[in-house]
Amino acid sequence: MPEPVTAVYEIETAGPLERAAEVMAGEQSSGTFLRVARETDDLRARHGATVVAVEELPASGRPPLPGMVGDPNEVRRGRVTIEFPMLNFGPSMPNLMAAVAGNLFELRDVGALRLVDLDLPIEFAERYPGPRFGVDGTRRLLDRPDGPMIGTIVKPSIGLTGEQLAQLVTELGEAGIDFIKDDELQGNPPGLPLRERVQVVMGALKAVADRTGRMPMYAFNITDDIDRLAENHDVVLAAGGSCVMVCVNLVGLAGLEYVSRRSQLPVHGHRAMYGAHARSPQLGIDFRVWQKLARLAGADHVHTNGFANKFYETDDEVLASINAVRQPLLGGYQALPVLSSAQTPGLAPLTYERTRTTDLLVLAGGGIHGHPDGSASGVLAMRQAWDATLSGESLDDRAAKVPALATALDTFGRV
Amino acid sequence: MPEPVTAVYEIETAGPLERAAEVMAGEQSSGTFLRVARETDDLRARHGATVVAVEELPASGRPPLPGMVGDPNEVRRGRVTIEFPMLNFGPSMPNLMAAVAGNLFELRDVGALRLVDLDLPIEFAERYPGPRFGVDGTRRLLDRPDGPMIGTIVKPSIGLTGEQLAQLVTELGEAGIDFIKDDELQGNPPGLPLRERVQVVMGALKAVADRTGRMPMYAFNITDDIDRLAENHDVVLAAGGSCVMVCVNLVGLAGLEYVSRRSQLPVHGHRAMYGAHARSPQLGIDFRVWQKLARLAGADHVHTNGFANKFYETDDEVLASINAVRQPLLGGYQALPVLSSAQTPGLAPLTYERTRTTDLLVLAGGGIHGHPDGSASGVLAMRQAWDATLSGESLDDRAAKVPALATALDTFGRV
Repeated sequence: MPEPVTAVYEIETAGPLERAAEVMAGEQSSGTFLRVARETDDLRARHGATVVAVEELPASGRPPLPGMVGDPNEVRRGRVTIEFPMLNFGPSMPNLMAAVAGNLFELRDVGALRLVDLDLPIEFAERYPGPRFGVDGTRRLLDRPDGPMIGTIVKPSIGLTGEQLAQLVTELGEAGIDFIKDDELQGNPPGLPLRERVQVVMGALKAVADRTGRMPMYAFNITDDIDRLAENHDVVLAAGGSCVMVCVNLVGLAGLEYVSRRSQLPVHGHRAMYGAHARSPQLGIDFRVWQKLARLAGADHVHTNGFANKFYETDDEVLASINAVRQPLLGGYQALPVLSSAQTPGLAPLTYERTRTTDLLVLAGGGIHGHPDGSASGVLAMRQAWDATLSGESLDDRAAKVPALATALDTFGRV
Repeated sequence: MPEPVTAVYEIETAGPLERAAEVMAGEQSSGTFLRVARETDDLRARHGATVVAVEELPASGRPPLPGMVGDPNEVRRGRVTIEFPMLNFGPSMPNLMAAVAGNLFELRDVGALRLVDLDLPIEFAERYPGPRFGVDGTRRLLDRPDGPMIGTIVKPSIGLTGEQLAQLVTELGEAGIDFIKDDELQGNPPGLPLRERVQVVMGALKAVADRTGRMPMYAFNITDDIDRLAENHDVVLAAGGSCVMVCVNLVGLAGLEYVSRRSQLPVHGHRAMYGAHARSPQLGIDFRVWQKLARLAGADHVHTNGFANKFYETDDEVLASINAVRQPLLGGYQALPVLSSAQTPGLAPLTYERTRTTDLLVLAGGGIHGHPDGSASGVLAMRQAWDATLSGESLDDRAAKVPALATALDTFGRV
């Protein structure tokens, strides 16, 4: 018999934690709101989910989510671990999610419910081969054997003409950037359709490569209807592109899996819309779980957010996300954490101090394009900041020798 | 120039509502955290999103979500309407979502952000034909020209043998039920794979049809990896089945669209995992928006939850959901609201009083299978309760003539 799936939840409930845990296990396996014919003890023994641990946690201090039954003043908070038999869904990610998530968030018995961890048996690895490039494959393709991979997002996100985009990409490529990506807002718009964008960008990058001997990886955002994904990928591949980007939540984890299974290029997994099921600490699916599913579905690159970002997450949360992506999953599934959101040269020391690794793709959008001397100076400043950090030199010492870094620190700040 | 997309949000922010609205519009169109080269006034005029209305609302009384900047005691709540130019994404649902949802939920400038409405221009209708069966097609296929369509979910959800399932389906079919569906937990499990389940169920239903002249519609849950969806649909079609069910959030709206575009059968859209982005009133995507997207993506049946349900939503919320599904979208997109969750015969009067329609698919799981005299008596009680309600007869008067209804009311309660 295969090992079960283990799911861990943080919940709040107005009654005993154990009772809420039993409701969760029943609702998500063989039970319904009352016992029905044919629901034999034998069926329950084979198919029932099992509560294997309940641990009380300190109160959250937040009012319960709407619709909880019981006295809100009696709320207890706890961590609940439930095992689900593989017999109920087999190694299918969508069907797994029906069991471990599904209707759980809507239960009246809880005033908070968050899926915080998920352990899967090896059968999932057999069905889902996962990322084919990961850190090593990405380093090889963008020719950066060690050190952090420095990248950027095309800004403004949308609205550039083909000619402007070619200029920008050329400038970045000649400045030695490792990686460029479309913004998540740049899909396949009438203004500059993907097919045209691919031609423009690859033309510029090939010219750069002819002059410099290096070509940055460019992640083309191929997000669209499922029926267009394979063709979009093929357009990038045929033009000599080396990466495709997918907004995971916009095509679904199932859509990501569909792309990855066909992709001959690294798949850059953007997390747009992640906050919709994650920002309330009382609800939804934690990044720890989300990134496991994204890697299982084949994401080579996973957006983790960056330190001192412009969004809601704290540095501790960002660090936990980066560490989660770097932890082996079922013995493999190597993926590259992608740091972005208000990243600037001044953040290099903090980023390295917290992560102690250079297996990172660090993206600066405004932090490169907003450099007063232009994007090329922005790239130089990012590279120099990391180089100084890894050599144990202070950014100010390095800035005294590198004017582009000095200007970047003056413009974007030090940490 | 095409009409823009209009999105409406409810937000909370510690500063002026107008300022937060401008940040939202900038972040989701041409802007980033600082102005960059090439972001010309002309580019902003063509591609920028525009705040068209800001209306103050009473405070929610809830603490802001984590990460909001500013003084939590100064929080203001409001409704913000933003127009997004079609030029930025074209009529692509996934790319649309990058703009109107995307990173918005993560903004520090807000302590709450919920997408509550979305109006789309006609270009979306040209790309997404939507449901092909809707209410009328479903009535025709299951041969119920008027009155509510009465259905059930197979219970226990999982674990029945093929033989038990055949018995259950036979009993329900002979009792004259209109509709039967798999539970969302029943996908393609090793215990009873979809292919085998289809053979068992269709064999039983054909035998019922031979004896009674009527065959209920059975919604087979075909939810799985994208690459298996078309084949799963074909298995159902080839066996003479008349409906496929998809858990929309588990395959993604893009996955639903992929199924609908190919389906020769009505697509039953289950909302499992909906709560993950909806239960916090401060976050996520409202049902009003979600159902529009699901209909655009082709769902013929949309789960709305039912009155007096076992989940967190109030009856007013359920009514709003049912009404939303019944409202024409871009002049069409007729879809059938599906009421479920702890539905019983006793709820017929309340349901009709609130909705004033019988264009409903009312599903009782435990409320049919939990009937002390068996599932057939459960079906009879549901039908009689609705028949009494529509004839203006009280349930107690009808129960005096129909013992199965009396038993149901005694067992499951009156409202």
